Amino acid sequence: MHPPRRRLLLLLLLSLGLLPAVTWALLAPPRFPGPDARPRAGAGNGVGGYEFETRYFRQRLDHFSFPGVGDEEFFQQRYLVGRAGGWAGPGGPIFFYCGNEGDIAWFAANSGLVWEAAPRFAALVVFAEHRYYGESMPFGSKDKAYNNSRSLAHLTAEQALADYAVLLTDLKRNLSAEASPVVLFGGSYGGMLAAWMRLKYPHISVGALASSAPILQFEDIVPCAIFYDLVSNDFKRESLGCFQTIKDSWKELDEQGNAQDGLLKLSKTFHLCQTLKSSEALSDWLSSAYSYLAMVDYPMSSDFLMPLPASPIKEVCRNIDKQPEGTSTLERIYAGVNVYYNYTGTVDCFDLDDDPHGMGGWDWQACTEMVMPMTSSEDLSMFPRYEFDYGLYADNCVKSFGVRPRPRWITTEFGGHNISSVLDKFGSNIIFFNGLLDPWSGGGVLKNISSSVIAIVAPLGAHHIDLRPATKEDPDWLVSLRESELEIISVWLSDHYGAGGVLFQNAAANDQAAS
Amino acid sequence: MHPPRRRLLLLLLLSLGLLPAVTWALLAPPRFPGPDARPRAGAGNGVGGYEFETRYFRQRLDHFSFPGVGDEEFFQQRYLVGRAGGWAGPGGPIFFYCGNEGDIAWFAANSGLVWEAAPRFAALVVFAEHRYYGESMPFGSKDKAYNNSRSLAHLTAEQALADYAVLLTDLKRNLSAEASPVVLFGGSYGGMLAAWMRLKYPHISVGALASSAPILQFEDIVPCAIFYDLVSNDFKRESLGCFQTIKDSWKELDEQGNAQDGLLKLSKTFHLCQTLKSSEALSDWLSSAYSYLAMVDYPMSSDFLMPLPASPIKEVCRNIDKQPEGTSTLERIYAGVNVYYNYTGTVDCFDLDDDPHGMGGWDWQACTEMVMPMTSSEDLSMFPRYEFDYGLYADNCVKSFGVRPRPRWITTEFGGHNISSVLDKFGSNIIFFNGLLDPWSGGGVLKNISSSVIAIVAPLGAHHIDLRPATKEDPDWLVSLRESELEIISVWLSDHYGAGGVLFQNAAANDQAAS
Repeated sequence: MHPPRRRLLLLLLLSLGLLPAVTWALLAPPRFPGPDARPRAGAGNGVGGYEFETRYFRQRLDHFSFPGVGDEEFFQQRYLVGRAGGWAGPGGPIFFYCGNEGDIAWFAANSGLVWEAAPRFAALVVFAEHRYYGESMPFGSKDKAYNNSRSLAHLTAEQALADYAVLLTDLKRNLSAEASPVVLFGGSYGGMLAAWMRLKYPHISVGALASSAPILQFEDIVPCAIFYDLVSNDFKRESLGCFQTIKDSWKELDEQGNAQDGLLKLSKTFHLCQTLKSSEALSDWLSSAYSYLAMVDYPMSSDFLMPLPASPIKEVCRNIDKQPEGTSTLERIYAGVNVYYNYTGTVDCFDLDDDPHGMGGWDWQACTEMVMPMTSSEDLSMFPRYEFDYGLYADNCVKSFGVRPRPRWITTEFGGHNISSVLDKFGSNIIFFNGLLDPWSGGGVLKNISSSVIAIVAPLGAHHIDLRPATKEDPDWLVSLRESELEIISVWLSDHYGAGGVLFQNAAANDQAAS
Repeated sequence: MHPPRRRLLLLLLLSLGLLPAVTWALLAPPRFPGPDARPRAGAGNGVGGYEFETRYFRQRLDHFSFPGVGDEEFFQQRYLVGRAGGWAGPGGPIFFYCGNEGDIAWFAANSGLVWEAAPRFAALVVFAEHRYYGESMPFGSKDKAYNNSRSLAHLTAEQALADYAVLLTDLKRNLSAEASPVVLFGGSYGGMLAAWMRLKYPHISVGALASSAPILQFEDIVPCAIFYDLVSNDFKRESLGCFQTIKDSWKELDEQGNAQDGLLKLSKTFHLCQTLKSSEALSDWLSSAYSYLAMVDYPMSSDFLMPLPASPIKEVCRNIDKQPEGTSTLERIYAGVNVYYNYTGTVDCFDLDDDPHGMGGWDWQACTEMVMPMTSSEDLSMFPRYEFDYGLYADNCVKSFGVRPRPRWITTEFGGHNISSVLDKFGSNIIFFNGLLDPWSGGGVLKNISSSVIAIVAPLGAHHIDLRPATKEDPDWLVSLRESELEIISVWLSDHYGAGGVLFQNAAANDQAAS
């Protein structure tokens, strides 16, 4: 999830000159990591070592209206199909990843669990790309798809869910696999889609693993300050000194920004390629790093959005704390954040305006239906105080995108208030995974709802760590947690097949014999 | 539910001259009765003796896209609010009727159960009008709303359900009644909407009474011949002779239509105002009457679409059978159908082209998502043989409306195949009522699915008879069946209120004390 119009908002607000700069550093709700990132491997027939075919499905732009024959719009939706350890064939399980806001090949590479579990169940693996991301562009190109509010109008979660429903229904028919049970997977926004898909299209799947899915981060369902409080906690648990240094830094940054030659000095301290025009861009750059660090605070080295060491916040705080006495607060901050932005040590200078992806689709989604109010209170947070002003937020969406948000639409469409009772009565076969280091866990489902709507909570886990490819560094708790998830999925499949589950049982038997 | 493009189809096909006339008589799937009928009482503040306020809600035309600020379209959705026996106030129940394809005041007048049950539960009554019907016209007028495929594009069930979700959410907020349990009601297409609403928006209501809702009448879920077989059964059970006379009549009608001066003779036999140009219009007029008669074959006199005596099919068959020996088959048919079209005896001649409502909204819906394949086999049916040809159907939708149907969309969006397992795992608190005389019962849910998804089946009931206003003629089985429905609803409400259900319990106590 991207912050809505991070730079656009900043520019707009600064030009309005309404509030002191330091307040704005946090106007940008954090992004989920990496939405527009490119796949690391070639776009050929494999990413991260997983073999797949790339296919395209002619998808209609608007499922919920019937334009006349000449007015219908279609686009090519990309999806990846892999047979991992060999599919059991028609009737055999289908593992379906609900693509989120980015290139699907990149999610495929970072969702190793799906590939690695598939052979055990003889499951077909499908990763479907979300409309308006990666190659799945309406109107033939990203430029045209992102041209204006009219071209972007159909970038919504409901349309994406309908895409998945139509794709799956068609795919199963073409494979003569109408009887195949579908297990949904998704992480982050993709996890929200997986959970919602299970609720809205119960006839399409037998269960969903919704990993780090903050389906409650809307309106006032959870405290608005929870995200930044959780980020702050992650730093505090590593080092109180580090937490305090960051907390103190905003004022210094602001003061230095206002001092004579302050911006030049700040630019030098932070090794920026260009001299700052205001200190807010720097605040934004720093707070983004902290939020991202909290999301990817994995106990093993990783290369999700940035190459990072194991437990990167520990490393950041060590760098902040270990500087010799007399090192200024801002120099300490630089030493810390350098771990995030330059762990490989290859960056000579930082370009804060470096946004290779242009206007992100998540910015649009946050300005339409994905309105997640976030604040920062000075009590528990290391961030500066920030109140969410919906009126301002909406005005800026109108100014930036020409679109008006509908902040209550998501809870009207999908529910959210009293979610326990709705999930209890209507949901079944959903795993909500959350890692408590992940600030998005604040909007997640953290308690078991029923015997088949299960919350799996990892106190030391970060953003959808369960979905990540297995590594030799994985701690025992992670290995065992993944095993629990697969055992639950195995029950869903056994329930589906019942006594006649020959295909699946044979596959499992083969798997055991082979292991 | 209207037949898709009844006259349009006929005209188109005749002009193509592809098939013998008698085959066409049944091309038109039957309509649900009365969609565009006007309310019988004044449009003031009461219909059928029920008092209500008429209100309007600014509803957005497209819930599932975000057009830019200048492109947003809204319309005024009409809804009726009644307090019947006095609402218990915020927290008290809300009875919400999901309007179907017609003027909402007319459904309000014909859904007495909702009004009559409300005082017992101290419930607020809301009847919401379906978009594109009655006064709830996008673009300001029916002419503009029905102008072309572009203006009609957003006449879909999904948009209508979202209308109801948004209206209910807003209404409850405005009344500070967020905690109020909502019970959904609906008959026919409105019953389908009520059931789907309970499945798709489980957070919005505590239960739904879906009366005569043929949610399975899609694709090949139920046998395509079932509708006309059930109509035929209704005639056969009254009189085998009557059934056979009707079955024999089509050939005679066709032969006479092709004979010299035959059309003139037919026009005289059937007291038509204008001379027929072909016999097909007459076949269509007759088969419509039989289908409607089967739907409204109530055991008491009624005035739903037409003023009719109790058990009208019995009356029709009596008229067909009782004619003196030597009366021709077609004269017998006229004597029978006269009961349906002219029970009051006030009609001098019949105008087959009399379509005061113009192009009906249901015609559009049947040409987009509500594709219900229907055939007639000569084995069990009194209608001529007719095969459903989807290609022809689709071509005619393109020709008539400029729109292409999506025959698999409804089952993709709402399910339908293996509905038992989906309803069992995901649904709760739904009553599916069906009367077995109603030909739409062939597409209904006729068996209990779980302890809270209940099928109530009335062997002698017709189309949503349970919802009709109570009369002194009501047979005991109907009185007792309605009582069963209300007892189930009472359990839903008790479950909702639990131990704290003071409002509702008091209301019920008051009601008992008063009765």
